[in-house]
Amino acid sequence: MHIPLNTRFSQRFGLASPIALAPMALAAGGALAAACARAGALGLVGGGYGELAWTQREYALAQQAADTGRIGCGFIVWKLDQDASALDWVLEQKPRAIMLSFGDPRPYARRIAAAGAELLFQVQRVDQVPMALEAGASVIIGQGGEAGGHGMNALHGRATITLVPELADWLAANSPQTMLLAAGGIADARTLAAVRVLGADGALVGSRLWATQESLAPAGAKAQAVETGGDGTARSRVFDILRRKDWPAPYDFRAIRNALHRKWESRLEASSYDEARAEYDAGVKAGDFTRAHATVGEAAGLIHDLPPAAQVIERMSAGAAEILGGD
Amino acid sequence: MHIPLNTRFSQRFGLASPIALAPMALAAGGALAAACARAGALGLVGGGYGELAWTQREYALAQQAADTGRIGCGFIVWKLDQDASALDWVLEQKPRAIMLSFGDPRPYARRIAAAGAELLFQVQRVDQVPMALEAGASVIIGQGGEAGGHGMNALHGRATITLVPELADWLAANSPQTMLLAAGGIADARTLAAVRVLGADGALVGSRLWATQESLAPAGAKAQAVETGGDGTARSRVFDILRRKDWPAPYDFRAIRNALHRKWESRLEASSYDEARAEYDAGVKAGDFTRAHATVGEAAGLIHDLPPAAQVIERMSAGAAEILGGD
Ligand SMILES: Cc1cc2nc3c(=O)[nH]c(=O)nc-3n(C[C@H](O)[C@H](O)[C@H](O)COP(=O)(O)O)c2cc1C
Ligand SMILES: Cc1cc2nc3c(=O)[nH]c(=O)nc-3n(C[C@H](O)[C@H](O)[C@H](O)COP(=O)(O)O)c2cc1C
Repeated sequence: MHIPLNTRFSQRFGLASPIALAPMALAAGGALAAACARAGALGLVGGGYGELAWTQREYALAQQAADTGRIGCGFIVWKLDQDASALDWVLEQKPRAIMLSFGDPRPYARRIAAAGAELLFQVQRVDQVPMALEAGASVIIGQGGEAGGHGMNALHGRATITLVPELADWLAANSPQTMLLAAGGIADARTLAAVRVLGADGALVGSRLWATQESLAPAGAKAQAVETGGDGTARSRVFDILRRKDWPAPYDFRAIRNALHRKWESRLEASSYDEARAEYDAGVKAGDFTRAHATVGEAAGLIHDLPPAAQVIERMSAGAAEILGGD
Repeated sequence: MHIPLNTRFSQRFGLASPIALAPMALAAGGALAAACARAGALGLVGGGYGELAWTQREYALAQQAADTGRIGCGFIVWKLDQDASALDWVLEQKPRAIMLSFGDPRPYARRIAAAGAELLFQVQRVDQVPMALEAGASVIIGQGGEAGGHGMNALHGRATITLVPELADWLAANSPQTMLLAAGGIADARTLAAVRVLGADGALVGSRLWATQESLAPAGAKAQAVETGGDGTARSRVFDILRRKDWPAPYDFRAIRNALHRKWESRLEASSYDEARAEYDAGVKAGDFTRAHATVGEAAGLIHDLPPAAQVIERMSAGAAEILGGD
């Protein structure tokens, strides 16, 4: 059986590779989204928490730098529920795609469809899929807990290797026209080829594209990710508490398990929040990533350099095509 | 690139498929190990906690029923540290392989080598590999947290899709003759093919072979696994506490997140252990798996029937060979 890298996902979005840049809050700015789009991937700007001025600036940058029809934007749904002005502004720009995650997308279905954008919805469990289909999602993204950034905790979340084939079976039986991307741990040719074998039409890539020249992540954080293996990240609530981010259960966060994380991970209680936050804030101020967080997933162990994004996409897709038998 | 299913692992152990039965405590008895060995896989009896009488009975059964040279036995190292009599007894039977996990294998290296058995060691992190190589392991098994049964918790553990390629890179650079199996979530043709793509020489399969006719798991537990999707399991300490198992940190346990687990998962404290344990014990006595535990991993979502073990191995390997381009 020959498994092509040219998939219905790459065809629908006019891509050279079945890869979407994960809309990483604060890291996936206009330069990174444009670099990905120019390299033939889907470039999703990290609208994240929905900060209007940031989104306007970065989205405009992406559109200027890559007039490809391959630009879109992602948002965190529970933040949109508080303020959707950044989504509304992006929709006026006629994006190719909107990616939503971490909440109920149905309240946003109508306006996204009206703007002519495709809806990509990221799930962490199979039981979230019906809600996404009701919202009109044409692409389901299955995110495993090995992913960098937010995801679901160990009690509720899944891993990519079981989630993706189970989603593929569910969609084949219930909604065969809906496309499927895998997210979580996809960072090289092998992992991209593997998720094609598992039944995904492509991959959403975060950590590996975060560790590139165009990414807006701090240089110190990127350097730390290059030095850190996959054993060196952890999923917990620690950094959400330190950053005063009110993430709803059952979500938590994967980043490098640095010295400050280790210090507090087993004894962070309301009474110690002030002390821990002061240490964290001082680390951020000093650009010291033994205290500030570096948001990268288990894929850190597959990241050994900080190339331009186009090189990442080229390596991953050329290598995967070779593994899978060429295109 | 053509990726064969006939690997150095299958060749070394004389296997028709690059699959090893996970030595599942109490489930992988002599009948299951023998069925796997006869079907061309490596049949590891689940010596588990090292109970001598159980191990003697089941191992003898396996050897009688499958005189194939493909029979071995697995043990939990921190229990061997208390009583290694079952290991010593098995070594007198000249097993093909001993699999160890969950502790430091070095104290057992000499006697395993002296018996002529190959040592397979299961790691949950890359940083455990040097210790396994010092102990003379010829096969490293990388176990992701999606696995059924014990593994490492979210703070320390890994997922199969990142752990396997990172281990493959590490071994290629530092110990290229050492073989690599993947464990955690491998339950069908796609997942077996995927771990070959990720760089494993084969797979250690637990949950999928637990859900077979020959497995000693209770019929009620198997039936519940067929009904449960991958969303329905969880990794936690709950069942270890309920079963009074003194597992050392950082290990915890994945099983079906049944009603009793849900009741106690967020409020199990020393003061409530007696009450929770009484409910659990009553569930076990009644064979009621809304209270008793059913030990299956996220692969539950890929398990839809309870066939003979040989059929599982045949489906997985024939299907994977087709995906990967035939042998
Ligand atoms: C730095 C960083 C920031 C992220 N921010 C968001 C976000 O704002 N919204 C979102 O839906 N996902 C976010 N994610 C998760 C990604 O969408 C994606 O699921 C993940 O990066 C995939 O796993 P990987 O990091 O192993 O590639 C973020 C991930 C990273 C690494
Ligand atoms: C019922 C059950 C019991 C297990 N008991 C053991 C054990 O005694 N020793 C061990 O090393 N691993 C044990 N494991 C873990 C397996 O060795 C293996 O890592 C795991 O089953 C692989 O993931 P999978 O269940 O998704 O196939 C057990 C797994 C299951 C499902």
